[in-house]
Formats: sequence, structure tokens, C-alpha cells
Amino acid sequence: MKMTQFVIVGLGRFGSSIGRELVLLGNEVLGVDRDEEKVQELSSVLTHTVVADATEEEVLRSVGARNFDCGIVAIGDDIQASILAAILLKELGVKKVVAKAVSELHGRVLERLGVDRVIYPERDMGVRLAHQLVSPNLLDYIEISKKYTIAEMEVPSCLTGKSLANVNPRGRYGCSVVAINKPKGMIIAPNADDVLTEKDVMVVIGTNEQIEQFQNSIRR
Amino acid sequence: MKMTQFVIVGLGRFGSSIGRELVLLGNEVLGVDRDEEKVQELSSVLTHTVVADATEEEVLRSVGARNFDCGIVAIGDDIQASILAAILLKELGVKKVVAKAVSELHGRVLERLGVDRVIYPERDMGVRLAHQLVSPNLLDYIEISKKYTIAEMEVPSCLTGKSLANVNPRGRYGCSVVAINKPKGMIIAPNADDVLTEKDVMVVIGTNEQIEQFQNSIRR
Amino acid sequence: MKMTQFVIVGLGRFGSSIGRELVLLGNEVLGVDRDEEKVQELSSVLTHTVVADATEEEVLRSVGARNFDCGIVAIGDDIQASILAAILLKELGVKKVVAKAVSELHGRVLERLGVDRVIYPERDMGVRLAHQLVSPNLLDYIEISKKYTIAEMEVPSCLTGKSLANVNPRGRYGCSVVAINKPKGMIIAPNADDVLTEKDVMVVIGTNEQIEQFQNSIRR
Amino acid sequence: MKMTQFVIVGLGRFGSSIGRELVLLGNEVLGVDRDEEKVQELSSVLTHTVVADATEEEVLRSVGARNFDCGIVAIGDDIQASILAAILLKELGVKKVVAKAVSELHGRVLERLGVDRVIYPERDMGVRLAHQLVSPNLLDYIEISKKYTIAEMEVPSCLTGKSLANVNPRGRYGCSVVAINKPKGMIIAPNADDVLTEKDVMVVIGTNEQIEQFQNSIRR
Amino acid sequence: MKMTQFVIVGLGRFGSSIGRELVLLGNEVLGVDRDEEKVQELSSVLTHTVVADATEEEVLRSVGARNFDCGIVAIGDDIQASILAAILLKELGVKKVVAKAVSELHGRVLERLGVDRVIYPERDMGVRLAHQLVSPNLLDYIEISKKYTIAEMEVPSCLTGKSLANVNPRGRYGCSVVAINKPKGMIIAPNADDVLTEKDVMVVIGTNEQIEQFQNSIRR
Amino acid sequence: MKMTQFVIVGLGRFGSSIGRELVLLGNEVLGVDRDEEKVQELSSVLTHTVVADATEEEVLRSVGARNFDCGIVAIGDDIQASILAAILLKELGVKKVVAKAVSELHGRVLERLGVDRVIYPERDMGVRLAHQLVSPNLLDYIEISKKYTIAEMEVPSCLTGKSLANVNPRGRYGCSVVAINKPKGMIIAPNADDVLTEKDVMVVIGTNEQIEQFQNSIRR
Amino acid sequence: MKMTQFVIVGLGRFGSSIGRELVLLGNEVLGVDRDEEKVQELSSVLTHTVVADATEEEVLRSVGARNFDCGIVAIGDDIQASILAAILLKELGVKKVVAKAVSELHGRVLERLGVDRVIYPERDMGVRLAHQLVSPNLLDYIEISKKYTIAEMEVPSCLTGKSLANVNPRGRYGCSVVAINKPKGMIIAPNADDVLTEKDVMVVIGTNEQIEQFQNSIRR
Amino acid sequence: MKMTQFVIVGLGRFGSSIGRELVLLGNEVLGVDRDEEKVQELSSVLTHTVVADATEEEVLRSVGARNFDCGIVAIGDDIQASILAAILLKELGVKKVVAKAVSELHGRVLERLGVDRVIYPERDMGVRLAHQLVSPNLLDYIEISKKYTIAEMEVPSCLTGKSLANVNPRGRYGCSVVAINKPKGMIIAPNADDVLTEKDVMVVIGTNEQIEQFQNSIRR
Repeated sequence: MKMTQFVIVGLGRFGSSIGRELVLLGNEVLGVDRDEEKVQELSSVLTHTVVADATEEEVLRSVGARNFDCGIVAIGDDIQASILAAILLKELGVKKVVAKAVSELHGRVLERLGVDRVIYPERDMGVRLAHQLVSPNLLDYIEISKKYTIAEMEVPSCLTGKSLANVNPRGRYGCSVVAINKPKGMIIAPNADDVLTEKDVMVVIGTNEQIEQFQNSIRR
Repeated sequence: MKMTQFVIVGLGRFGSSIGRELVLLGNEVLGVDRDEEKVQELSSVLTHTVVADATEEEVLRSVGARNFDCGIVAIGDDIQASILAAILLKELGVKKVVAKAVSELHGRVLERLGVDRVIYPERDMGVRLAHQLVSPNLLDYIEISKKYTIAEMEVPSCLTGKSLANVNPRGRYGCSVVAINKPKGMIIAPNADDVLTEKDVMVVIGTNEQIEQFQNSIRR
Repeated sequence: MKMTQFVIVGLGRFGSSIGRELVLLGNEVLGVDRDEEKVQELSSVLTHTVVADATEEEVLRSVGARNFDCGIVAIGDDIQASILAAILLKELGVKKVVAKAVSELHGRVLERLGVDRVIYPERDMGVRLAHQLVSPNLLDYIEISKKYTIAEMEVPSCLTGKSLANVNPRGRYGCSVVAINKPKGMIIAPNADDVLTEKDVMVVIGTNEQIEQFQNSIRR
Repeated sequence: MKMTQFVIVGLGRFGSSIGRELVLLGNEVLGVDRDEEKVQELSSVLTHTVVADATEEEVLRSVGARNFDCGIVAIGDDIQASILAAILLKELGVKKVVAKAVSELHGRVLERLGVDRVIYPERDMGVRLAHQLVSPNLLDYIEISKKYTIAEMEVPSCLTGKSLANVNPRGRYGCSVVAINKPKGMIIAPNADDVLTEKDVMVVIGTNEQIEQFQNSIRR
Repeated sequence: MKMTQFVIVGLGRFGSSIGRELVLLGNEVLGVDRDEEKVQELSSVLTHTVVADATEEEVLRSVGARNFDCGIVAIGDDIQASILAAILLKELGVKKVVAKAVSELHGRVLERLGVDRVIYPERDMGVRLAHQLVSPNLLDYIEISKKYTIAEMEVPSCLTGKSLANVNPRGRYGCSVVAINKPKGMIIAPNADDVLTEKDVMVVIGTNEQIEQFQNSIRR
Repeated sequence: MKMTQFVIVGLGRFGSSIGRELVLLGNEVLGVDRDEEKVQELSSVLTHTVVADATEEEVLRSVGARNFDCGIVAIGDDIQASILAAILLKELGVKKVVAKAVSELHGRVLERLGVDRVIYPERDMGVRLAHQLVSPNLLDYIEISKKYTIAEMEVPSCLTGKSLANVNPRGRYGCSVVAINKPKGMIIAPNADDVLTEKDVMVVIGTNEQIEQFQNSIRR
Repeated sequence: MKMTQFVIVGLGRFGSSIGRELVLLGNEVLGVDRDEEKVQELSSVLTHTVVADATEEEVLRSVGARNFDCGIVAIGDDIQASILAAILLKELGVKKVVAKAVSELHGRVLERLGVDRVIYPERDMGVRLAHQLVSPNLLDYIEISKKYTIAEMEVPSCLTGKSLANVNPRGRYGCSVVAINKPKGMIIAPNADDVLTEKDVMVVIGTNEQIEQFQNSIRR
Repeated sequence: MKMTQFVIVGLGRFGSSIGRELVLLGNEVLGVDRDEEKVQELSSVLTHTVVADATEEEVLRSVGARNFDCGIVAIGDDIQASILAAILLKELGVKKVVAKAVSELHGRVLERLGVDRVIYPERDMGVRLAHQLVSPNLLDYIEISKKYTIAEMEVPSCLTGKSLANVNPRGRYGCSVVAINKPKGMIIAPNADDVLTEKDVMVVIGTNEQIEQFQNSIRR
């Protein structure tokens, strides 16, 4: 089932970023915030905007919140408002409710109330940034499971001009280069004799340890 | 050159998350915040912590900030403090300075002052969440370039029991499945006759449009 | 199972009243409040008192909250603190958790979190006072069910000197006088020829309509 | 004399609950509060509402407060406003003035000023809740005098299937069961061979000690 | 009965002025205020001073307020504190309680509570100043009754050198000059041939109208 | 020269009392205050009222302050506003400027700026009250000079029925009774055989010591 | 290139003084401030005024800030606003940007952002006043370089009637009198026989030490 | 008479700048401020520092303010504190009192109170900056009288290589070049054939109009 109608409660930096992107991706978005200034800033970006207190049942009912596919509670520091808005969206029958938590305890309350997905943006971004900082070649990564990671890595100068056969990450560390993004185009499933050059970006899959060892080997 | 010594200015949710992860990854981290309570909470987690005002030159000098490889300005809403701490870290000679910005204008000031990397955590998390919300099968993704994306996707029920040859994403949409994470293990560079089952996760590479079309085709 | 150990979170007017009475009734009571002044006022009344923030897990754990039979969240206007304290008491394994709610929505959140009993003191006292005000003879009452009520009523001057047979509430209105509290003692299950005098108090059982009609008949 | 016209000063949780119930009971109610939001919330519930400062004589005079049968000062924490409103209602000639007190000293001032009835809702509710908590079978109770109580008690599982003759509360503890509320209807003045079943509620009259002993005997 | 022991609650400008003067007149004065700074300022002036909240019964009891002959509630703008302190002093059995009121309504409450004398310093000083401003010769005055006033008046230049017989206030306006304060000494019950000179001050008794006419006649 | 036009800056308790009395005495009064509420309260009492900031030259000029005979700065606690308003009135050429001071230093500044009369209402009322409290018979008094006082005294019961010759204040203490206010009328310059009765009020002139000794003699 | 169009951001004491003088000197000035009151005060003085937040790009763009020759950031204590306004003016392409700094660190940030001239008014005025205070004859001075100063000095009484040849500052201290301002007119390049009189003002050029020695010699 | 002992009241940016410079110039300086932080910052710079409220007479007396030659009231925005400190310094007998004013009215009050010199730093710096901005060659200037000015001007490129005879400011505009500061040294009273080069700075004396015309002629 495709979600195409979203209501976002809280139009701070996080909520407004979600809203802008959802509209860019072709969805209908209703933005709700108590702060008139924030609402005005987004009034020409989002499909609909309302200045309202989303912790009052009547308010959410009157803006038709129940008809939306997905409700996003992006309220920042006001834990009480976050909790009340989340339970109201659930009770109104919104199909999926996603909410931001600012602490683990806050997150546990939201989960108990039936929120479908609890997110911790600052915590998650912090973890992601930490990984990138300790591995300067690491551009970004996805943890596919507790064990496996896909990493996007810059080709360092020490590998420039070498073929994959020379570098041999699979033989040495057990991880595979599944794609090389070269200025002239993407090579998917590259061959052993494909040569790395300076502006290339490798996509590598492996266990966390394999990836880490490979990264360490080229970070000298 | 490997970074192993970090100083973090601002120990809110974002800064403390970075600090915790950097320590887990084996680095030395000095945390600085004006708020004694926040510092105490992290005093047993980070290598060193100091209650101090990081917008005063003497303070940063006396904690030896100049000897750190990397300075992270994770100050949230106080733009002035963020700017002053960033310029002080630069002037003290910290090799790399990373700073969080809360608005584009704030980011431009930081770049002008020579900050090496400016990050917008809420904005970036918002964008990432928006993508995941509109494509429920999409678990996570990396934008390798303006054109290419790697996506981690759940196998939906409509594909269960089909082989890659049946699904044929490369033939139909132009994108490649470079790995399948199955409960029993990761298949890297899978064959055409590998069969998808319900708990599988595919790693797909392609242009943004190819990925989007493939996602849409299986989201009914 | 008898409850004898209570922890009360929030020592305002409501919480301190509960605590005092529980101690009078022979129970062990631990009182917790962030406000040092309130704690001091009760330190010689309750069994134990602690100045602490009951929305922090460590705090409740360290005061041994888990060992208490019953937790009472008597926090007044700070809905957030009320919710966080309630979930913590539940998660710590306190057998029974009772919490005060200040609005219906607050009450619904508490119920969803598994609070065993949600009470609305101001609302309930308001209802009770309203009934007493409209029926000046009505001293107090209990609603046994949606239909039946027991009422404690003063004998008005118009009934003074009359026997129950004369007054005949059962014959006229369908409700029964099950006891008469006379200055010289209680008459339980009085006879038809028991005579009402001025300081008497009747205990009457009947449906709400029967009681109301009887009250109206003697309120002229 | 029947009271039918009420003026309520202070429309917080307590005052608004009184007002709602008085209207439900068929009375005319004027609600007064300084807070526009609170007044609006009740404007469709109460007979009349006014946004006004009830500590100014002119205000009370102009809303015709003197014509009401009963004035209820339900102001919460603002002791000064409570006192001034109370004296004004008395001086205007309102027949009966009831006022909420938040401390014993506050109550003494109100009594000295001639307030007809001073009530302490949080304190009274706290006492009532304490009693219910220590006796889980106790649903509610009325203290008829210092000595006698009527209690409404759930029939515990240990009494299920027993007749009143078996249980014999009068013989054993001296208290009488004056009514049994059974799912199928109320039995007033039950016989010795009436049998208790699980959903039954007993209404018991006796001295406080008798009731307490009976309760303790069935609370194992 | 002579008053010699005073307790003053509230050490602002008014209370501290009373206290200083009472000590000068040879009395024992205890000053009480919540504000430590105000208490310190008077600690070397008054007999005893205490930093305390005079709206708490225990506090007044512990400073021995009951033993004082007279209690003065000189609290300025905090009507609630004024009322609570006044009732406590009355209940403790202080023989005479005097209290400052800031409005008529405040004054009526104080009187109802049994305060022996209610004073309105700003109002009274305003009235007194108004009289002096409209009659520049008028130095000061006492209203003996609704009808009679004693006025202290400067001798204006137009009367210099004239005898009382010439001026003839009794004959012309009906009021009597009962004393003339001359630089060389006071003349009590002056004669008709006593001559007025420039630095003299007359003490005049008469009805309000007589005094006013006499003043107007010499104010040209 | 007769003053008949007054401008009052500051309409608090003191300023409004002056204004009311000046109007009662037949003068024209312009009241100025920044606080709209205070101005409205007096708008039907004073001749003219203006909501304005009296510390801005243009404001005072535009309300025509310069044309008034006398300016009264009755601003309470805002010393800065008091000083600025006072100098502006002086510079505008108002003939006489009177100002209230809240401390001696404030008073010294006002005098240096040329204010014609500086008054300290709370201090003066405090002194006056202190005198009355220590001498319960003393109703009021005027200090004619450092040495002489006129006192208005109640006739105490111990003097009832005695003639002035019996009491003999002049012979015993040196002070003279210049008038006796009796219920039936005022006796000016009473004779030695005039008899004092219980409701009488004596007007006594003498040195401070004479008056004090006379008071002490009758205060037993 | 002549500057004739100025935009001033911040209309406090410093900014408004610049604006007034620039208009007097015949230039066009646009004044911008968030504070409506400050803007109104200058609306009849400056060429244009706008109530606006100069830290928002759209605002500066819409008032046409880019067309001005020179932007002056005269914001006082809000360092953040000062920095944001400065970078916006630079980015809009204003030819010259001058900004006030309140601390050295603030100044360094402004310089890094490309501000053309950073000024410290309080610091500079403080230095200037200090010099004048220690040398009472010194009226004003300009530091031409680290070494040379031009000073404007009053002729003290000890030099009255002496010729320059007598005084001989060049011979004794090495500094030259380049002009004497006499009541009757300016003498430029005075001769050795020009005589100093009491109201004269000398203009002296020399090294800082020469000037100081000359000043000290005449300050007895 | 030489001033060498200074007391500065108010250690903000202006006061601290005065203090630092006075100490550099060899004077003894006592700094007084209520703000402990400000005092600490200067404690190692000034001769003495005290945390104290300079509006209390006792305070100024106890720090020996009367013994100082000169008192500087550098209090910024608190007009009341500025006025009270100024009058206290005058009354204590400090020989010379200089005070900063923030408005013309504030300045008039200070003058009336006898302050010897009133300064307006922001206003004066604003005027000075305005002049420099409109004449980019103008480095600094002194107004010797209403008519005459000494200006320090950069030699613009259009004059480079010309002799004074060629430029001829005296002949063309009436103003004289009394000195040229060249990189190699100062030429005082230059000759007609002295040649201007690019880094030179001219010191010019003349009437305001002459200087302005000369400046305009070289600013094209």
C-alpha cells in the first residue's frame, strides 16, 4: 500500500525538512504547528498548513487528520505535546504514526502508546557522523544487519592506478567491491582488471570487521 | 592520516551521540559544555569532560584544544556560540573542524570562517526519513552521486518465491541487485536463479529513476 | 493480598493528603518530590521521604521503588512528569500503579501505559459538591451503579415527629430507609413505626430517580 | 429553600466540573473567570459565562451576582483572589457562599469572613483514595458520624457461593449488610439465605472498627 | 494601658519608619520581613529583627509574637500576605492589631477579620498634601470632627504689623486664633492687641468653612 | 498667589489620592500615567487625563504641562522616571514642582535639580502612626516647631466628670487646653470650671515634654 | 569613488548618530532596525527607514540593500545578528561594509567574513578620554602613526604672554607648533615672535614622547 | 594640577577601556562594578577593583572614593544608577566628576547635579565615523573651533608624484599642508617643492569649507 498523504505535527528544522522532501517526492502534506511564523514560512511549500495546537483532539479532527495515511510527530523538546499528539493520531485512526523521541524513556512511552516507528534523529546522525570522522575515506554506509555493512569509500591516493586484482580486498579482507563509480560512469560488478583512479568511489560489501580492516589498510 | 583525538563542543543529544560512538570506536574524546548537568552525565563515558564556555579563547587554550586532531562544534541553537567556538578552534590550529548548522545562512558563515565540514543533521535526517516513508520497502539508501543510488530494500510478498531472472530488475528497470541478505547469510553478486524469500533484503544499485521505478513496481 | 507499602510521587495537596491518611491507617509510605520544601514539611509525617526527580529511572531504582506494593502518581499539572513517572513505576514492576489525571486525554495516555487506576480528583469532587449543593438535605452519597444510589440525608423539619409509616418513602417513591442515625445510636433496618426527629440522619437506598423525588418532596 | 441559580467564580478543573454537573442537574449557572480560554471552553455548557475579574466589586455587581442563590468560589491557588471574591459575594448578599480552600489558614480566613461552607477538595479526595487503596474490596464509603460508616464492598472470591448466614458479618463483626447489588437487580434488606456471587456488591453499615474487621477478614 | 512592645510585619519604607520612630520613643520593637536585605538594614536600629515568613503560624509563634502588645502589619502590595499575617496575629492573641490597606476592599477584609485599626497611608498623605498645596499658608491641620479643624498657618505679608483686633478673624469669619508661635516664644490665648509679624505661625480653630474663608482672604 | 491648575505625574495610590482631593477642593487637575488602566480609573474623576510617558519632553510639552501652576511628581518606585519627569517640569517653567522621594538620596537629587518641595509620604505616615500607637489617647497632632506641639486627645475615663480646674494641666504640666470638642459643640478657650465628659476631645498646646507628661499621667 | 548612499543596520545610539550626521553631510541614508520605536524616532531624519530583521536575506534584498554604496552594521550587543547582517551585506554585493564589534573575538569573526572595516567605538572613546583626562590641557589629538601625534592644546596660564621663541618647544622637546588658533583668527606656521595669550589653542606636531614632555612641562 | 588617581564606576566596554588606558599612562585606578565577572576580568589590570553597588553612599565612602582626584561614571544604560553614583561622587568631594550620558535629557540632569564633564561616546563616535565614511581619504580630524579643522588625509593616486606647488591647496582652496608623514619620516612645514608619493599622509589645516573643497577635488 502506497502512502501519499502525510500530516506532520511540528514544523521545526526536522519536521520542515521531512515536509519539503515529501512534497518534492510528489506527496500531499499537511503541516501543523502552534507557531504562526513557522507555518507561514512553509505555507508556499507544503500542500496545506494550519496554525493549531495538535494536542487538542478537536483540532486534529477538524483538520481532517484521520484521513491521512501517515502522521509524523516531529515535535522537538516538548515531550508532553509529542505524547499527546501521538496518542491522538493513533486514536483518530491514522494508519501509520511515526514520532521523534528525544530520550530513550520518551521513546518507550511512544512505543507503549502504539506508535509504529520511533526515531532518534540527533542520536542516529551522531553515530553516522562519528563513523565518517574516524574513517576519512568513508563517505557513507548502511548497516544491512548487525553483521553486514555496505560502505561507500573514496579511492585513496595509495590505491590510484592499481587494479582490483592488485588491491584484492576479497582475498585480503573478505569484502567485495560491488560497484565503482567513476567520473565517466558506474561500473557494476567490476572485473579484477578494472583499475582504480583518483576520483573513483567504491561500493564495498562485507562484514563490519572486513570493511574496517580494509579501511584501515588504506588509511595510512 | 588517522584522526584519533577529538574535542566536542556542545554535549546535547547530537554531540553526546557523536562522543559515545567515537569512544566505542576506540578514540579519545574531550567533551566541553557550559551545562554542568550534561557534562556529568557523560563524565563516565567520554575520555575527558570539562564544564567550560567554549567561546572564550583562554578556556579552549587551557584545555589543550589545539592538540586535538578534530574539533566538532555540536552546539545546537545558539548560533553566536557556534560561530565563536568554530573560529577559536580554527585559530588554535585544530587540524579539522566540523560544525553543525541550523540554517543555511549559519552554514555559510561557518564555511567562510574556514570550517572544514558543515553538517545539517535535522535537515538530512528529515530527507532520509521522507524517502523511507514514501517507499515502505526501502530500508535505507546512499546517494553515491547526483545520479546513482544504492538502496537496501525488503523483499515484498509479491516477489516471494521468484528468482532474480523472473523479477529481472536489470532487464525491466536497468538497476542491479548486487547482494541479497538472507537469514542464512549474505549472497554477494547473486545469480539469476537465486530465489527471493520473505525475510530477504536486496541491495540494489542504479540511477535514481531506475530504483524508483523498481520500487514502485513492487509496492502494490 | 494486602497493600501495605506505598510510594507516592508528588507531595502537593493531593499527594500529601493521601500520604498522611495512609500513615494514619498503619501503612509504610515513601514520599518523593522534586521540591525540597514540600518534602521537609512531610518528613516527620511519612515513613520515608526523598527529594528526587521521579522521572529518572535511576532515581526510582535507587530509592527501591520496585519493592513497594503500590505506586501513586499524584503529580498535578506537569503532564509530562506524570506520564514518565507512571511508566517508570510500571516498568520497575510495582504491583499496582494509581495516577491522577488532569484531563481526559491525559487519563487515556495513562491507561494505555498500563496504569491500573486513573483518578480525577477535582472533577469527582466537583460532581459530588454539585449534588450536595442542589439538595441541601443531602449530606453525602455513593453511586453503587449507574442506576442505584445510597444517600445520607438530614431529616428536614417537615418530617420531624413523623413515623416512617407516615413518610412512607418506599410506598410513595420506591426507595428504602435502611438505617437511621439518631443522636442516641444507629437503628439498622428501622421499623415502620420508628419516628424521625430533628437531628436524625437517614440512609436511603433506591434508584437515582426515586431518591431525587424523595429529596424534592422534602425540600420545600 | 431550593437553590437553583448558581454563580461560579473560577472555571478551572474543579469549578468547571461543578458547573457541568449543576447544569446536568437542571440548574442555571453563571461562570466567571479572568481567563478567556477557560470561559470559551464552557460557553456552550453553562447557562451564562463572563470573562471578568471577580475581585472587582463593579464586575460582580454588573453581572448581577447578587441575584444568585449560591456563589461558589472555586479559585485554585490565588488565595488573594479567593478571599476578595468571597467577601464580595457575601457583601452583595448572595444567600449561600461556598469556597474552596488550599490550606487550613486560608480556610480559617474564609470562615471568619462569613463563608457558609469551606471545602478542601484535594485533601478530602486524598483521604478517600487512601481508604480505598488499603482495602481493595472497598469501592466507596460514607462516614455517617465519627463512629458509623456505610461501605460499598465488592464480594471477594472467598465469599462466592456463600449465604449471608454463612458469612454472618453481624454475628462475627457486628456490622449489617443492608443491600446487595446483584447483576440482575438490587436486593434491599437481604435475607440470611441470600447467596453472594462474584459480581455482587454489598452495602454494609457498622461502626468503623466493625467494618474494618469485616474487610480484613475477607482480604486474604 | 500603655503599649510598649510592638511587632512589625513588613519592613518596607512604611514599616521601617514606624519601627525607627517607636524605638526613638522608647519602645521595644521586633521587626519581621522575608527579605534578608531589609532586615539587615534595620538590625542595628530595632530591638530585635527576624528574617521570616509572617504568613506561617509556626513562624509567628516561634518568635513569640503573642507576647507583644501591638502588632503592625505594614506589608505593602502583597494583599494575601497582609491578610494571612493579620489573622495570625489576631488568633495568637496580640492585644491590638493595626494593618495597612492598599484598597478599600482590602481594608474591608481586614476589618472583617477583626483588625483593630486599618490605615491607608498613601491615601491619607495624598489628601493632606492636596490641602497644603491649595492653601500655601497652610502648614498643617487636624480635622477634629467632620465640622471643626485646627489649622497651622503662616502669617502672610499682608497681615504683617497688624494686631489681632485689626485682622479680626473671629468677627469676620467666626474662627479663633488660639495661639501664635513667634520666634521669641509661643503666645497661648493671645490678646486682641497682639501684633502679627512675618515669621509668626497662627494656630486657628473653627469650622471648615470659617477656616477656608479666612485662608482665602489672606491669600491674595 | 493661588494655585488652581495642577498636573500630576503618576496615578498610583498616592497620586490618585492627591488628584481626587484637589478636584474636591475645586481645582483643575491633569493626570498623567503610562498605565492605561490607572488612567481610565481616574478619567471620570480628574479634569483631564492622559496616557503618556512623562519622561519625554515632547509629551509634557504637547499636553501643555507648562501652563499649570503646580506639578506633582507622584511616581513611586521608578527613581529614574521620577528624576526625569521632575527636571522636565522644572525646565518647562512650571511654577512649583513637588515630588515624592523614596529614599534620602533620591530626595537629595530632587532638591539639587530645583524641586521646590520633596515629600516622603511613607516615612512621614510611619512617624505619625508611631506617635499615635504609643499614646492611645492621642488622636492626631501637629508639630508647630521643634519645641511646640498641638495635640488632639480623647478624654480618658479617669478624667470624666472633672473640671479643668481639677485636672489643671497648665499648673501641673505647663500645657494649655485651648479647646474642648463636646458632642453638643466646640468650646474655644474653655474656662477652669468647664467639666470634661466621656466623649470629649481636648485640643492641647505645649512643649513636647509637657504634652508627653500630661498624656502619661492620664494613661493609666 | 564617492560614497553617497548608505544603509545602516541597527539604529541605537551609535547607528542613529551616524545616520543623522551622514544626512547632514548631504548623503542618502536607509535605516533598518527590528525595533519599531527606534525606527519611528528617525523616520523624519533619515532618507528612508524600514522596520525589518536584517538577518534575513529576503528582507535585505527587498529593501534594495545591494544598491547602496556602503553598509554599516551598527548592531550593539547581539553578536549573532551583527555577524549575520554583515555576511548578508557582503554577499549582496554592497561595495563597502563597516561593522561595530563589541569584543576582539567578534572583530576577528567580522574580519574573516570580509568586513572592510571593523570599529570598536566604546574602546576607542575610552582610550581618547583617558588621554584627555591625564592631560587637562590636551583638547584632542590624532595619532598619525605609531610614532607621531598631532595635539590640540590649550595655552596654560604659565605660558601667557610668552613668545614661541621663549617657550621654544622645538628646541626643548623637539615638537613644532604648526598653528595657533587665536580668538581673532588662525595663525598657520607661526613665527618665533608670535606671542601666546590666554584663550589661544596650539596645534603641535611631534613624536609621542616629545608631545608628552611638552605637556608635562606646562602642567604645573 | 595633575590628576593621577581615578575611580571608575561601571566596568563595561567603555569603562574598562578608560581604565586600561589610564593604567598604561601610569595612573592609579580603582574600578567599581556590581557585576563580579566584570570586576574579575579587570582585577589584574587595574590598580584596585571592588565588587560593589556605587549607588550606596556607604559603599563609596568605604572604598575611599573621596580621596580620588577624578571620578568617572561610565555606567551604560541604567540612568538611575548613573545619576545616583554621580551625585554621591560630587557630595563626597571628588575634585572632578566625568559622566557618560545616553541621552540629552540624561546629560542635562547630570549637568544640573554639578558633573564637570558630560560625554556621549556613541554619539561622538558616530559623528566621527560619518565624516570618515563620506571622505575616504580622510583618516581622522580635529575640530579646533566651529570654523577650523585639522585633517589627516591619505595622498590619493591622482596626486602621486606632484609637488605641493603643483597641487597648491593654499592657492586653490585656502588650506595649508602643515606636515607630510612619509614612510621615511615626518616633514614638518614642508616646502613647495616637496613631492607627494603614494604612502604619504598629509596634515592639512583650514576652514571646514576649504578642507571639504580640497577633499572633494581629489576624490574623483
